[in-house]
Amino acid sequence: MLYLVGLGLSDETDITVKGLEIVRKASRVYLEAYTSILLVDQSVLEAYYGRSIVVADREMVESNSDEILRDAANVDVVFLVVGDPFGATTHTDLVLRARELGIPVRTVPNASIMSGIGAAGLQLYNFGQTVSMVFFTDNWRPASFYDRIKENRSIGLHTLVLLDIKVKEPSLENLARGRKIYEPPRYMTVGTCARQMLEIEEEKGEGVYGPESLAIGAARVGGKTEKFVAGTLKELCDADDLLGPPLHSMVLLGRRTHELEHEFVREFAINKENWDRIWKADYAGKH
Amino acid sequence: MLYLVGLGLSDETDITVKGLEIVRKASRVYLEAYTSILLVDQSVLEAYYGRSIVVADREMVESNSDEILRDAANVDVVFLVVGDPFGATTHTDLVLRARELGIPVRTVPNASIMSGIGAAGLQLYNFGQTVSMVFFTDNWRPASFYDRIKENRSIGLHTLVLLDIKVKEPSLENLARGRKIYEPPRYMTVGTCARQMLEIEEEKGEGVYGPESLAIGAARVGGKTEKFVAGTLKELCDADDLLGPPLHSMVLLGRRTHELEHEFVREFAINKENWDRIWKADYAGKH
Repeated sequence: MLYLVGLGLSDETDITVKGLEIVRKASRVYLEAYTSILLVDQSVLEAYYGRSIVVADREMVESNSDEILRDAANVDVVFLVVGDPFGATTHTDLVLRARELGIPVRTVPNASIMSGIGAAGLQLYNFGQTVSMVFFTDNWRPASFYDRIKENRSIGLHTLVLLDIKVKEPSLENLARGRKIYEPPRYMTVGTCARQMLEIEEEKGEGVYGPESLAIGAARVGGKTEKFVAGTLKELCDADDLLGPPLHSMVLLGRRTHELEHEFVREFAINKENWDRIWKADYAGKH
Repeated sequence: MLYLVGLGLSDETDITVKGLEIVRKASRVYLEAYTSILLVDQSVLEAYYGRSIVVADREMVESNSDEILRDAANVDVVFLVVGDPFGATTHTDLVLRARELGIPVRTVPNASIMSGIGAAGLQLYNFGQTVSMVFFTDNWRPASFYDRIKENRSIGLHTLVLLDIKVKEPSLENLARGRKIYEPPRYMTVGTCARQMLEIEEEKGEGVYGPESLAIGAARVGGKTEKFVAGTLKELCDADDLLGPPLHSMVLLGRRTHELEHEFVREFAINKENWDRIWKADYAGKH
């Protein structure tokens, strides 16, 4: 059997009891470690599980999945995924390959950032499609998020923005030279995300959002040090110190809001007067 | 401290290790049991936790929350929620009240149907706002879901439809007579949902969806007997036997789809030829 087991969002104790039992009994355990990370190291997981695990990087999962699936028709193989196995990144390919090989598959769900973000106080019902924000470079500034946010906002919906992480990625220079030397990991902050968003708005000029649009920065959702900071996009450009270490994500508010949400989120506002003023002018009862 | 602890989606072992430790040590434990249910009884949970729990019905949570919060500034109180504490139903009110009383709050997230539905094989990125479907009566047929689905479909997005459950609700007759006698629990099935959806489309006639629209029925998501059935809305009207016992939910497809999703979901199709034909004609590359 292939088990896809979600690890939840923060540390080794976020696995479910069901998931932990499966991990402890399985023949082989892989950890998918390139689309998201826990806030603890692999060694902490290994000590907690009482067994070794194999870190599966993108190359292994995408090009060598038959090694992961080896003999899984007869023995139990676990594929651990941070968050929910089908959350922010789907592992559809691996499941389809398992099906082809006649390997049964079971999923053990867990918290995903896509539901965990509800702790910020906005009703999950009113979120539209989720977008991703990647690190811009001098000549690569993918902005497809802009049109998606535009669609969401056109019908009053909030947008969850998932922020880029770079783990075990070769630098362009090393890639060109065929060297497998990796850059240190990088995690996008809310500040970078807000700046990149404003940059693209300035370029496109369609008024999808602006420096005065309300948003919530989120850090380490689900962990003991979980932190939310609410403010305008402009304010959030400089809120990284308040938010602290990774992982970060962000919510851009839509206009379909309730007074209870105002009250709930206000607690996190950098500047409560600003928050109240803009909420009243641009959000409350505007949908 | 007030702990909001998610229980996940199916049985007593879906709690996280972190959540279980908190439950075992807490002074008092409440179980919110009116917006969703696990697939196991309260007695199973109590045996597993090794302690008693108090079932909190809607009346208690909405009108008597100070009893739940009693002394929580000094002792640990746990409020258990099926799924994620901020998933399908937010417990914003309780948290706001705790804040007023100076009680610190911590959330232990878990799987929610809003992310767990990813196991059906559609990318969670492409879901729009979530809607709820309630049991229609002769003179009460709330159809606000229709406009929301219309919005989602206008931008190509899928819609998760959460289905009504009636737990510990007085009948209208008993309510009128002031008697606290409750009806047996009722759980909406995918068949009822599909029929109600088609009924409203027939009335409104805006062509938001129709009998040939593709959808996925989901039953007991995250459990051992998890089951997905894919088909047209018309086919799903009669798929309850295939799906089996509650809880059910449903996804109405949007047109923003990938070939991988086609392949993944096809496995669940009642009639694969139908599925392929309609997918090709109305979905693939149509967005």
